[in-house]
Amino acid sequence: MIDNNRRNLCLMALLAPLSAHAANAKEPVHQDGEGHMSMPDRSVHWEGNEQIAMLMYPGMTVMDLIGPQCMFGSLMGAKVHLVAKTLEPVTSDAGVTIVPTATFDTCPRNLDVLFTPGGTDGTLAAAADHETLAFMADRGSRAKYVTSVCSGSLILGAAGLLKGYRATSHWSCRHALAGFGAIPTDARVVQDRNRITGAGVTAGLDFGLMMIGKLRSRFYAECTQLVSEYDPHPPFNAGSMKTAPQKVKADMVELLSGFSKKAEALAHSSA
Amino acid sequence: MIDNNRRNLCLMALLAPLSAHAANAKEPVHQDGEGHMSMPDRSVHWEGNEQIAMLMYPGMTVMDLIGPQCMFGSLMGAKVHLVAKTLEPVTSDAGVTIVPTATFDTCPRNLDVLFTPGGTDGTLAAAADHETLAFMADRGSRAKYVTSVCSGSLILGAAGLLKGYRATSHWSCRHALAGFGAIPTDARVVQDRNRITGAGVTAGLDFGLMMIGKLRSRFYAECTQLVSEYDPHPPFNAGSMKTAPQKVKADMVELLSGFSKKAEALAHSSA
Repeated sequence: MIDNNRRNLCLMALLAPLSAHAANAKEPVHQDGEGHMSMPDRSVHWEGNEQIAMLMYPGMTVMDLIGPQCMFGSLMGAKVHLVAKTLEPVTSDAGVTIVPTATFDTCPRNLDVLFTPGGTDGTLAAAADHETLAFMADRGSRAKYVTSVCSGSLILGAAGLLKGYRATSHWSCRHALAGFGAIPTDARVVQDRNRITGAGVTAGLDFGLMMIGKLRSRFYAECTQLVSEYDPHPPFNAGSMKTAPQKVKADMVELLSGFSKKAEALAHSSA
Repeated sequence: MIDNNRRNLCLMALLAPLSAHAANAKEPVHQDGEGHMSMPDRSVHWEGNEQIAMLMYPGMTVMDLIGPQCMFGSLMGAKVHLVAKTLEPVTSDAGVTIVPTATFDTCPRNLDVLFTPGGTDGTLAAAADHETLAFMADRGSRAKYVTSVCSGSLILGAAGLLKGYRATSHWSCRHALAGFGAIPTDARVVQDRNRITGAGVTAGLDFGLMMIGKLRSRFYAECTQLVSEYDPHPPFNAGSMKTAPQKVKADMVELLSGFSKKAEALAHSSA
Protein backbone atom coordinates (compact mmCIF):
# COMPACT_ATOMS: atom_id res chain seq x y z
CA MET A 1 0.00 0.00 0.00
CA ILE A 2 1.21 3.46 -0.79
CA ASP A 3 0.05 5.99 1.74
CA ASN A 4 0.05 9.32 0.00
CA ASN A 5 0.69 10.99 3.32
CA ARG A 6 4.26 9.68 3.05
CA ARG A 7 4.78 11.45 -0.21
CA ASN A 8 3.09 14.60 0.80
CA LEU A 9 4.58 15.33 4.23
CA CYS A 10 5.50 18.81 3.17
CA LEU A 11 2.09 19.28 1.62
CA MET A 12 0.14 18.09 4.66
CA ALA A 13 1.39 20.96 6.74
CA LEU A 14 0.08 23.34 4.13
CA LEU A 15 -3.29 21.69 3.69
CA ALA A 16 -5.10 24.44 5.52
CA PRO A 17 -4.97 27.05 2.75
CA LEU A 18 -6.09 24.42 0.25
CA SER A 19 -9.03 23.53 2.47
CA ALA A 20 -9.89 27.16 2.98
CA HIS A 21 -9.91 27.87 -0.70
CA ALA A 22 -11.93 24.75 -1.32
CA ALA A 23 -14.48 26.00 1.15
CA ASN A 24 -14.57 29.34 -0.62
CA ALA A 25 -14.95 27.66 -3.94
CA LYS A 26 -17.78 25.42 -2.93
CA GLU A 27 -19.98 27.35 -0.52
CA PRO A 28 -20.79 30.96 0.10
CA VAL A 29 -18.95 32.42 3.04
CA HIS A 30 -21.18 33.34 5.94
CA GLN A 31 -20.86 36.56 7.80
CA ASP A 32 -21.88 36.93 11.39
CA GLY A 33 -23.27 40.11 12.90
CA GLU A 34 -19.82 41.63 13.29
CA GLY A 35 -18.79 41.11 9.65
CA HIS A 36 -16.44 38.22 10.47
CA MET A 37 -16.25 35.54 7.87
CA SER A 38 -16.86 31.99 9.03
CA MET A 39 -15.89 29.23 6.66
CA PRO A 40 -17.38 25.77 6.81
CA ASP A 41 -14.90 23.13 7.86
CA ARG A 42 -14.06 21.38 4.60
CA SER A 43 -10.74 19.86 5.62
CA VAL A 44 -12.19 16.36 5.62
CA HIS A 45 -13.16 16.83 1.97
CA TRP A 46 -9.57 17.46 1.02
CA GLU A 47 -8.21 14.54 3.00
CA GLY A 48 -10.18 11.89 1.13
CA ASN A 49 -9.82 8.16 1.72
CA GLU A 50 -10.07 6.56 -1.68
CA GLN A 51 -8.86 2.99 -2.14
CA ILE A 52 -7.29 2.73 -5.58
CA ALA A 53 -5.99 -0.56 -6.97
CA MET A 54 -3.70 -0.47 -10.00
CA LEU A 55 -3.03 -3.85 -11.60
CA MET A 56 0.51 -4.73 -12.63
CA TYR A 57 1.64 -7.73 -14.72
CA PRO A 58 4.75 -8.76 -16.62
CA GLY A 59 5.08 -6.97 -19.95
CA MET A 60 2.77 -4.09 -19.06
CA THR A 61 3.66 -0.67 -20.48
CA VAL A 62 4.84 1.28 -17.47
CA MET A 63 3.81 4.72 -18.80
CA ASP A 64 0.19 3.43 -18.90
CA LEU A 65 0.53 2.93 -15.15
CA ILE A 66 2.60 5.91 -14.11
CA GLY A 67 0.63 8.63 -15.92
CA PRO A 68 -2.48 7.83 -13.86
CA GLN A 69 -0.36 7.10 -10.77
CA CYS A 70 1.12 10.60 -11.10
CA MET A 71 -2.40 12.01 -10.78
CA PHE A 72 -3.75 9.55 -8.16
CA GLY A 73 -0.61 10.22 -6.15
CA SER A 74 -1.77 13.78 -5.53
CA LEU A 75 -4.88 12.66 -3.63
CA MET A 76 -4.30 13.52 0.01
CA GLY A 77 -5.36 10.60 2.18
CA ALA A 78 -5.93 8.13 -0.64
CA LYS A 79 -4.31 4.69 -0.63
CA VAL A 80 -2.88 3.56 -3.96
CA HIS A 81 -2.20 -0.19 -4.18
CA LEU A 82 0.08 -1.62 -6.89
CA VAL A 83 -1.49 -5.06 -7.18
CA ALA A 84 0.03 -8.13 -8.80
CA LYS A 85 -0.47 -11.87 -8.58
CA THR A 86 2.39 -12.12 -6.06
CA LEU A 87 4.74 -9.66 -4.36
CA GLU A 88 7.52 -10.58 -6.81
CA PRO A 89 8.79 -7.50 -8.69
CA VAL A 90 7.03 -7.04 -12.03
CA THR A 91 8.99 -6.13 -15.17
CA SER A 92 7.43 -3.90 -17.81
CA ASP A 93 7.71 -4.41 -21.57
CA ALA A 94 10.66 -2.01 -21.69
CA GLY A 95 12.42 -3.62 -18.74
CA VAL A 96 11.40 -1.36 -15.84
CA THR A 97 10.91 -3.50 -12.72
CA ILE A 98 8.45 -2.34 -10.06
CA VAL A 99 7.74 -3.87 -6.65
CA PRO A 100 4.04 -4.59 -5.96
CA THR A 101 2.47 -3.41 -2.72
CA ALA A 102 -0.44 -5.87 -2.67
CA THR A 103 -1.50 -9.19 -4.14
CA PHE A 104 -4.85 -10.35 -5.46
CA ASP A 105 -5.48 -11.73 -1.97
CA THR A 106 -4.39 -8.72 0.08
CA CYS A 107 -5.90 -6.03 -2.17
CA PRO A 108 -8.86 -4.40 -0.40
CA ARG A 109 -12.15 -5.93 -1.50
CA ASN A 110 -13.99 -2.65 -1.90
CA LEU A 111 -12.41 -0.06 -4.12
CA ASP A 112 -13.12 3.42 -5.31
CA VAL A 113 -11.03 2.82 -8.43
CA LEU A 114 -9.96 -0.41 -10.11
CA PHE A 115 -7.41 0.29 -12.85
CA THR A 116 -5.38 -1.67 -15.35
CA PRO A 117 -2.57 -0.54 -17.67
CA GLY A 118 -2.00 -2.00 -21.14
CA GLY A 119 0.90 -3.33 -23.20
CA THR A 120 1.16 -5.82 -26.04
CA ASP A 121 2.03 -9.50 -25.52
CA GLY A 122 2.03 -9.10 -21.75
CA THR A 123 -1.48 -7.70 -21.87
CA LEU A 124 -2.72 -10.56 -24.03
CA ALA A 125 -1.24 -12.99 -21.50
CA ALA A 126 -2.86 -11.20 -18.57
CA ALA A 127 -6.17 -11.14 -20.45
CA ALA A 128 -5.99 -14.92 -20.74
CA ASP A 129 -4.87 -15.53 -17.14
CA HIS A 130 -7.65 -17.01 -14.99
CA GLU A 131 -6.44 -15.66 -11.67
CA THR A 132 -6.03 -12.16 -13.05
CA LEU A 133 -9.46 -12.21 -14.64
CA ALA A 134 -11.06 -13.58 -11.49
CA PHE A 135 -9.47 -10.78 -9.45
CA MET A 136 -10.56 -8.10 -11.93
CA ALA A 137 -14.10 -9.48 -12.21
CA ASP A 138 -14.46 -9.63 -8.45
CA ARG A 139 -13.13 -6.18 -7.58
CA GLY A 140 -14.78 -4.75 -10.69
CA SER A 141 -18.18 -5.96 -9.53
CA ARG A 142 -18.04 -3.62 -6.54
CA ALA A 143 -15.62 -0.84 -7.48
CA LYS A 144 -17.02 2.65 -7.73
CA TYR A 145 -15.09 3.11 -11.00
CA VAL A 146 -13.75 0.41 -13.34
CA THR A 147 -10.97 1.87 -15.46
CA SER A 148 -8.10 1.26 -17.84
CA VAL A 149 -5.65 2.97 -20.17
CA CYS A 150 -4.41 1.76 -23.54
CA SER A 151 -4.90 -1.92 -24.32
CA GLY A 152 -5.71 -2.48 -20.65
CA SER A 153 -9.36 -2.41 -21.72
CA LEU A 154 -8.72 -5.83 -23.30
CA ILE A 155 -8.27 -7.12 -19.76
CA LEU A 156 -11.47 -5.42 -18.61
CA GLY A 157 -13.24 -6.96 -21.60
CA ALA A 158 -11.84 -10.41 -20.96
CA ALA A 159 -13.01 -10.16 -17.35
CA GLY A 160 -16.53 -9.52 -18.64
CA LEU A 161 -16.58 -5.98 -17.36
CA LEU A 162 -17.37 -4.19 -20.63
CA LYS A 163 -20.46 -6.00 -21.93
CA GLY A 164 -22.69 -3.31 -23.40
CA TYR A 165 -20.37 -0.50 -22.39
CA ARG A 166 -18.81 2.10 -24.63
CA ALA A 167 -15.04 1.92 -24.27
CA THR A 168 -11.79 2.84 -25.94
CA SER A 169 -8.30 1.33 -26.11
CA HIS A 170 -5.01 1.80 -27.94
CA TRP A 171 -5.82 2.55 -31.58
CA SER A 172 -4.26 -0.74 -32.65
CA CYS A 173 -6.79 -2.91 -30.81
CA ARG A 174 -9.85 -0.76 -30.15
CA HIS A 175 -11.83 -2.69 -32.74
CA ALA A 176 -11.17 -5.91 -30.81
CA LEU A 177 -13.29 -4.66 -27.91
CA ALA A 178 -16.39 -5.58 -29.89
CA GLY A 179 -15.53 -9.24 -29.41
CA PHE A 180 -16.01 -8.69 -25.65
CA GLY A 181 -19.42 -7.15 -26.18
CA ALA A 182 -18.13 -3.63 -25.72
CA ILE A 183 -18.91 -0.74 -28.04
CA PRO A 184 -15.58 0.51 -29.44
CA THR A 185 -15.58 4.29 -29.18
CA ASP A 186 -12.94 6.53 -30.75
CA ALA A 187 -12.13 9.15 -28.12
CA ARG A 188 -9.20 9.85 -25.84
CA VAL A 189 -11.20 9.14 -22.67
CA VAL A 190 -14.59 7.40 -22.70
CA GLN A 191 -16.97 7.26 -19.77
CA ASP A 192 -20.03 5.03 -19.83
CA ARG A 193 -21.66 4.86 -16.42
CA ASN A 194 -18.82 3.78 -14.11
CA ARG A 195 -16.54 2.36 -16.82
CA ILE A 196 -13.87 4.92 -17.74
CA THR A 197 -11.29 3.91 -20.33
CA GLY A 198 -8.42 5.84 -21.88
CA ALA A 199 -6.77 5.55 -25.28
CA GLY A 200 -3.11 4.63 -25.76
CA VAL A 201 -0.25 5.11 -23.32
CA THR A 202 -0.02 8.88 -22.77
CA ALA A 203 -3.83 9.20 -22.62
CA GLY A 204 -3.34 8.08 -19.02
CA LEU A 205 -2.52 11.65 -18.01
CA ASP A 206 -5.78 13.06 -19.42
CA PHE A 207 -7.66 10.10 -17.89
CA GLY A 208 -5.94 10.57 -14.53
CA LEU A 209 -6.58 14.28 -14.35
CA MET A 210 -10.25 13.74 -15.22
CA MET A 211 -10.47 11.17 -12.41
CA ILE A 212 -9.09 13.71 -9.90
CA GLY A 213 -11.88 16.05 -10.94
CA LYS A 214 -14.46 13.30 -10.35
CA LEU A 215 -13.02 12.01 -7.07
CA ARG A 216 -12.43 15.43 -5.52
CA SER A 217 -13.26 18.61 -7.40
CA ARG A 218 -12.31 20.72 -10.40
CA PHE A 219 -10.25 22.95 -8.11
CA TYR A 220 -8.28 19.99 -6.78
CA ALA A 221 -7.66 18.78 -10.33
CA GLU A 222 -6.46 22.21 -11.39
CA CYS A 223 -4.03 22.26 -8.47
CA THR A 224 -2.76 18.82 -9.47
CA GLN A 225 -2.44 19.95 -13.07
CA LEU A 226 -0.34 22.97 -12.08
CA VAL A 227 1.94 21.02 -9.75
CA SER A 228 2.52 18.43 -12.52
CA GLU A 229 2.95 21.31 -14.98
CA TYR A 230 0.66 19.48 -17.38
CA ASP A 231 0.66 22.06 -20.17
CA PRO A 232 1.71 19.77 -23.01
CA HIS A 233 3.39 21.04 -26.18
CA PRO A 234 4.46 18.05 -28.27
CA PRO A 235 7.29 18.94 -30.66
CA PHE A 236 5.61 17.05 -33.52
CA ASN A 237 2.02 16.49 -34.58
CA ALA A 238 1.78 12.75 -35.16
CA GLY A 239 0.08 11.59 -31.97
CA SER A 240 -3.13 10.25 -33.43
CA MET A 241 -4.42 8.39 -36.46
CA LYS A 242 -6.08 11.65 -37.49
CA THR A 243 -2.92 13.74 -37.45
CA ALA A 244 0.02 11.44 -38.21
CA PRO A 245 1.56 11.55 -41.71
CA GLN A 246 0.49 8.77 -44.03
CA LYS A 247 3.82 6.90 -44.03
CA VAL A 248 3.99 7.00 -40.25
CA LYS A 249 0.49 5.58 -39.96
CA ALA A 250 1.08 2.88 -42.54
CA ASP A 251 4.30 1.74 -40.91
CA MET A 252 2.94 1.73 -37.38
CA VAL A 253 -0.24 -0.09 -38.40
CA GLU A 254 1.98 -2.73 -39.97
CA LEU A 255 4.32 -2.77 -36.96
CA LEU A 256 1.43 -3.51 -34.63
CA SER A 257 -0.59 -5.67 -37.03
CA GLY A 258 0.50 -8.89 -35.32
CA PHE A 259 -0.70 -7.58 -31.99
CA SER A 260 -3.93 -6.27 -33.52
CA LYS A 261 -4.75 -9.70 -34.93
CA LYS A 262 -3.97 -11.46 -31.67
CA ALA A 263 -6.17 -9.02 -29.74
CA GLU A 264 -9.01 -9.68 -32.17
CA ALA A 265 -8.54 -13.45 -31.83
CA LEU A 266 -8.51 -13.22 -28.03
CA ALA A 267 -11.69 -11.16 -27.95
CA HIS A 268 -13.55 -13.47 -30.27
CA SER A 269 -12.44 -16.59 -28.50
CA SER A 270 -14.10 -15.30 -25.35
CA ALA A 271 -17.37 -14.43 -27.05
CA MET B 1 20.76 -2.64 -18.24
CA ILE B 2 17.55 -2.67 -20.18
CA ASP B 3 17.97 -3.98 -23.71
CA ASN B 4 15.19 -2.51 -25.76
CA ASN B 5 15.30 -5.56 -27.97
CA ARG B 6 13.63 -7.45 -25.13
CA ARG B 7 10.70 -5.09 -25.16
CA ASN B 8 10.45 -4.90 -28.87
CA LEU B 9 10.61 -8.54 -29.95
CA CYS B 10 7.43 -8.16 -31.95
CA LEU B 11 8.71 -4.91 -33.41
CA MET B 12 12.11 -6.29 -34.42
CA ALA B 13 10.55 -8.65 -36.90
CA LEU B 14 8.83 -5.71 -38.50
CA LEU B 15 11.86 -3.45 -38.61
CA ALA B 16 12.26 -3.87 -42.34
CA PRO B 17 9.37 -1.63 -43.41
CA LEU B 18 10.51 1.01 -40.94
CA SER B 19 14.02 0.87 -42.37
CA ALA B 20 12.71 1.01 -45.90
CA HIS B 21 10.64 4.06 -45.19
CA ALA B 22 13.53 5.65 -43.36
CA ALA B 23 15.65 5.14 -46.43
CA ASN B 24 12.94 6.72 -48.54
CA ALA B 25 12.65 9.62 -46.17
CA LYS B 26 16.34 10.39 -46.02
CA GLU B 27 17.77 9.76 -49.47
CA PRO B 28 16.44 9.80 -52.99
CA VAL B 29 15.63 6.39 -54.30
CA HIS B 30 17.83 5.30 -57.15
CA GLN B 31 16.51 3.70 -60.23
CA ASP B 32 18.54 1.35 -62.35
CA GLY B 33 18.21 1.05 -66.10
CA GLU B 34 15.17 -1.23 -65.82
CA GLY B 35 13.19 1.14 -63.57
CA HIS B 36 13.73 -1.00 -60.46
CA MET B 37 14.08 0.96 -57.25
CA SER B 38 17.15 0.24 -55.16
CA MET B 39 17.10 1.55 -51.63
CA PRO B 40 20.23 2.21 -49.64
CA ASP B 41 20.61 -0.13 -46.69
CA ARG B 42 19.61 2.04 -43.75
CA SER B 43 18.76 -0.73 -41.32
CA VAL B 44 21.78 0.05 -39.15
CA HIS B 45 20.50 3.62 -38.73
CA TRP B 46 17.29 2.35 -37.23
CA GLU B 47 19.02 -0.09 -34.92
CA GLY B 48 20.99 2.56 -33.05
CA ASN B 49 23.24 1.82 -30.09
CA GLU B 50 22.73 4.71 -27.71
CA GLN B 51 23.82 4.33 -24.09
CA ILE B 52 21.31 6.19 -21.93
CA ALA B 53 21.72 6.51 -18.16
CA MET B 54 18.74 7.61 -16.09
CA LEU B 55 19.53 8.47 -12.46
CA MET B 56 17.21 7.21 -9.74
CA TYR B 57 17.25 8.20 -6.04
CA PRO B 58 14.91 7.91 -3.07
CA GLY B 59 12.07 10.43 -3.20
CA MET B 60 12.34 11.11 -6.93
CA THR B 61 9.08 11.80 -8.78
CA VAL B 62 8.55 8.69 -10.87
CA MET B 63 6.62 10.43 -13.67
CA ASP B 64 9.71 12.61 -14.28
CA LEU B 65 11.54 9.38 -15.04
CA ILE B 66 8.91 7.35 -16.86
CA GLY B 67 7.77 10.02 -19.33
CA PRO B 68 11.27 10.16 -20.88
CA GLN B 69 11.74 6.40 -20.39
CA CYS B 70 8.55 5.85 -22.42
CA MET B 71 10.20 7.68 -25.32
CA PHE B 72 13.77 6.32 -24.89
CA GLY B 73 12.24 2.84 -24.67
CA SER B 74 11.20 3.08 -28.31
CA LEU B 75 14.80 3.33 -29.53
CA MET B 76 15.62 0.07 -31.23
CA GLY B 77 19.04 -1.13 -30.13
CA ALA B 78 19.55 1.46 -27.40
CA LYS B 79 20.51 0.46 -23.86
CA VAL B 80 18.67 2.30 -21.10
CA HIS B 81 20.30 2.03 -17.67
CA LEU B 82 18.37 2.87 -14.48
CA VAL B 83 21.29 3.96 -12.33
CA ALA B 84 21.32 4.35 -8.56
CA LYS B 85 23.93 4.39 -5.84
CA THR B 86 23.38 0.68 -5.20
CA LEU B 87 21.17 -2.04 -6.68
CA GLU B 88 18.73 -1.71 -3.78
CA PRO B 89 15.20 -0.87 -5.00
CA VAL B 90 14.54 2.88 -5.02
CA THR B 91 11.24 4.28 -3.74
CA SER B 92 9.72 7.39 -5.34
CA ASP B 93 8.08 10.26 -3.48
CA ALA B 94 4.67 8.65 -3.98
CA GLY B 95 5.83 5.21 -2.90
CA VAL B 96 6.54 3.50 -6.25
CA THR B 97 9.56 1.21 -5.84
CA ILE B 98 11.76 0.52 -8.87
CA VAL B 99 14.72 -1.84 -9.17
CA PRO B 100 17.92 -0.25 -10.55
CA THR B 101 19.78 -1.94 -13.38
CA ALA B 102 23.17 -0.31 -12.78
CA THR B 103 25.13 1.45 -10.06
CA PHE B 104 27.42 4.47 -10.24
CA ASP B 105 30.27 1.98 -10.63
CA THR B 106 28.76 -0.27 -13.28
CA CYS B 107 27.12 2.47 -15.37
CA PRO B 108 28.94 2.80 -18.70
CA ARG B 109 31.50 5.59 -18.61
CA ASN B 110 30.62 7.04 -21.99
CA LEU B 111 27.01 7.96 -22.57
CA ASP B 112 24.90 9.40 -25.30
CA VAL B 113 22.40 10.68 -22.74
CA LEU B 114 22.80 11.37 -19.03
CA PHE B 115 19.42 12.12 -17.44
CA THR B 116 18.05 12.91 -14.01
CA PRO B 117 14.45 13.17 -12.79
CA GLY B 118 13.29 15.62 -10.11
CA GLY B 119 11.20 15.56 -6.95
CA THR B 120 11.15 17.69 -3.81
CA ASP B 121 12.99 16.70 -0.61
CA GLY B 122 14.51 13.65 -2.27
CA THR B 123 15.96 15.83 -4.99
CA LEU B 124 17.45 18.27 -2.49
CA ALA B 125 19.07 15.31 -0.73
CA ALA B 126 20.47 13.92 -3.97
CA ALA B 127 21.75 17.38 -4.90
CA ALA B 128 23.71 17.44 -1.66
CA ASP B 129 25.01 13.87 -1.92
CA HIS B 130 28.72 13.72 -2.78
CA GLU B 131 28.69 10.34 -4.47
CA THR B 132 25.71 11.28 -6.63
CA LEU B 133 27.27 14.58 -7.63
CA ALA B 134 30.61 12.95 -8.38
CA PHE B 135 28.87 10.40 -10.63
CA MET B 136 26.87 13.08 -12.42
CA ALA B 137 29.87 15.37 -12.87
CA ASP B 138 31.95 12.53 -14.25
CA ARG B 139 29.46 11.09 -16.72
CA GLY B 140 28.27 14.60 -17.56
CA SER B 141 31.77 15.64 -18.58
CA ARG B 142 31.70 13.17 -21.47
CA ALA B 143 28.03 12.55 -22.25
CA LYS B 144 26.79 13.63 -25.64
CA TYR B 145 23.72 15.14 -23.96
CA VAL B 146 23.32 16.22 -20.33
CA THR B 147 19.63 16.33 -19.46
CA SER B 148 16.97 16.57 -16.77
CA VAL B 149 13.26 17.06 -16.20
CA CYS B 150 11.58 19.04 -13.44
CA SER B 151 13.70 19.91 -10.41
CA GLY B 152 16.28 17.40 -11.64
CA SER B 153 18.15 20.40 -13.02
CA LEU B 154 19.00 21.26 -9.40
CA ILE B 155 21.11 18.10 -9.39
CA LEU B 156 22.77 19.08 -12.67
CA GLY B 157 23.44 22.51 -11.19
CA ALA B 158 24.83 21.12 -7.97
CA ALA B 159 27.15 18.89 -10.00
CA GLY B 160 28.51 21.99 -11.69
CA LEU B 161 27.06 21.04 -15.05
CA LEU B 162 25.01 24.18 -15.71
CA LYS B 163 27.50 27.02 -15.22
CA GLY B 164 26.73 29.55 -17.93
CA TYR B 165 24.01 27.41 -19.49
CA ARG B 166 20.40 28.39 -20.07
CA ALA B 167 18.18 25.87 -18.30
CA THR B 168 14.71 25.33 -16.92
CA SER B 169 13.20 23.40 -14.02
CA HIS B 170 9.89 22.95 -12.20
CA TRP B 171 8.29 26.40 -11.91
CA SER B 172 8.68 26.30 -8.13
CA CYS B 173 12.49 26.27 -8.20
CA ARG B 174 13.55 27.56 -11.61
CA HIS B 175 14.79 30.78 -10.07
CA ALA B 176 17.14 28.79 -7.83
CA LEU B 177 19.18 27.69 -10.85
CA ALA B 178 20.84 31.09 -10.86
CA GLY B 179 22.63 30.13 -7.67
CA PHE B 180 24.40 27.38 -9.65
CA GLY B 181 25.52 29.83 -12.32
CA ALA B 182 22.82 28.76 -14.74
CA ILE B 183 20.54 31.14 -16.63
CA PRO B 184 16.95 30.34 -15.58
CA THR B 185 14.85 30.20 -18.73
CA ASP B 186 11.06 29.95 -18.77
CA ALA B 187 10.22 27.39 -21.44
CA ARG B 188 8.93 23.84 -21.44
CA VAL B 189 12.16 22.42 -22.91
CA VAL B 190 15.40 24.40 -23.08
CA GLN B 191 18.43 23.43 -25.10
CA ASP B 192 21.74 25.23 -24.70
CA ARG B 193 24.51 23.41 -26.54
CA ASN B 194 24.34 19.86 -25.17
CA ARG B 195 22.39 20.70 -21.98
CA ILE B 196 18.71 19.92 -22.47
CA THR B 197 16.37 20.51 -19.53
CA GLY B 198 12.61 20.10 -19.21
CA ALA B 199 10.10 21.90 -17.00
CA GLY B 200 8.00 20.13 -14.38
CA VAL B 201 6.96 16.48 -14.30
CA THR B 202 4.86 15.95 -17.43
CA ALA B 203 7.26 18.06 -19.53
CA GLY B 204 9.29 14.85 -19.66
CA LEU B 205 7.13 13.60 -22.53
CA ASP B 206 7.79 16.68 -24.69
CA PHE B 207 11.48 16.49 -23.71
CA GLY B 208 11.65 12.78 -24.47
CA LEU B 209 9.98 13.05 -27.85
CA MET B 210 12.31 15.90 -28.83
CA MET B 211 15.27 13.71 -27.84
CA ILE B 212 14.06 10.90 -30.14
CA GLY B 213 14.05 13.41 -32.98
CA LYS B 214 17.64 14.40 -32.16
CA LEU B 215 18.97 10.90 -31.59
CA ARG B 216 17.31 9.34 -34.65
CA SER B 217 15.11 11.40 -36.95
CA ARG B 218 11.84 13.29 -37.15
CA PHE B 219 10.24 10.26 -38.80
CA TYR B 220 11.30 8.00 -35.94
CA ALA B 221 9.94 10.50 -33.42
CA GLU B 222 6.63 10.70 -35.27
CA CYS B 223 6.36 6.92 -35.20
CA THR B 224 7.07 6.93 -31.47
CA GLN B 225 4.50 9.68 -30.96
CA LEU B 226 1.82 7.69 -32.77
CA VAL B 227 2.53 4.44 -30.94
CA SER B 228 2.37 6.29 -27.60
CA GLU B 229 -0.74 8.09 -28.88
CA TYR B 230 0.73 11.35 -27.61
CA ASP B 231 -2.09 13.65 -28.72
CA PRO B 232 -2.76 15.31 -25.37
CA HIS B 233 -6.10 16.91 -24.49
CA PRO B 234 -6.04 17.92 -20.82
CA PRO B 235 -9.56 18.22 -19.39
CA PHE B 236 -8.67 21.49 -17.62
CA ASN B 237 -6.47 24.44 -18.48
CA ALA B 238 -4.39 24.99 -15.36
CA GLY B 239 -1.10 23.39 -16.34
CA SER B 240 1.14 26.44 -16.22
CA MET B 241 1.67 29.62 -14.25
CA LYS B 242 0.38 31.47 -17.32
CA THR B 243 -2.93 29.63 -17.54
CA ALA B 244 -3.89 28.49 -14.04
CA PRO B 245 -6.61 30.42 -12.18
CA GLN B 246 -5.36 32.89 -9.60
CA LYS B 247 -6.47 30.90 -6.53
CA VAL B 248 -4.87 27.73 -7.87
CA LYS B 249 -1.58 29.53 -8.46
CA ALA B 250 -1.61 31.24 -5.08
CA ASP B 251 -2.31 27.99 -3.23
CA MET B 252 0.25 25.95 -5.09
CA VAL B 253 2.94 28.60 -4.75
CA GLU B 254 2.27 28.53 -1.02
CA LEU B 255 2.16 24.73 -0.95
CA LEU B 256 5.60 24.53 -2.53
CA SER B 257 7.08 27.62 -0.87
CA GLY B 258 9.05 25.55 1.64
CA PHE B 259 10.63 23.58 -1.17
CA SER B 260 11.29 26.73 -3.21
CA LYS B 261 13.17 28.29 -0.29
CA LYS B 262 15.22 25.17 0.35
CA ALA B 263 16.15 24.95 -3.35
CA GLU B 264 17.29 28.57 -3.28
CA ALA B 265 19.34 27.95 -0.14
CA LEU B 266 20.97 24.86 -1.63
CA ALA B 267 21.89 26.69 -4.83
CA HIS B 268 23.40 29.63 -3.01
CA SER B 269 25.31 27.48 -0.59
CA SER B 270 27.13 25.94 -3.52
CA ALA B 271 28.00 29.25 -5.17
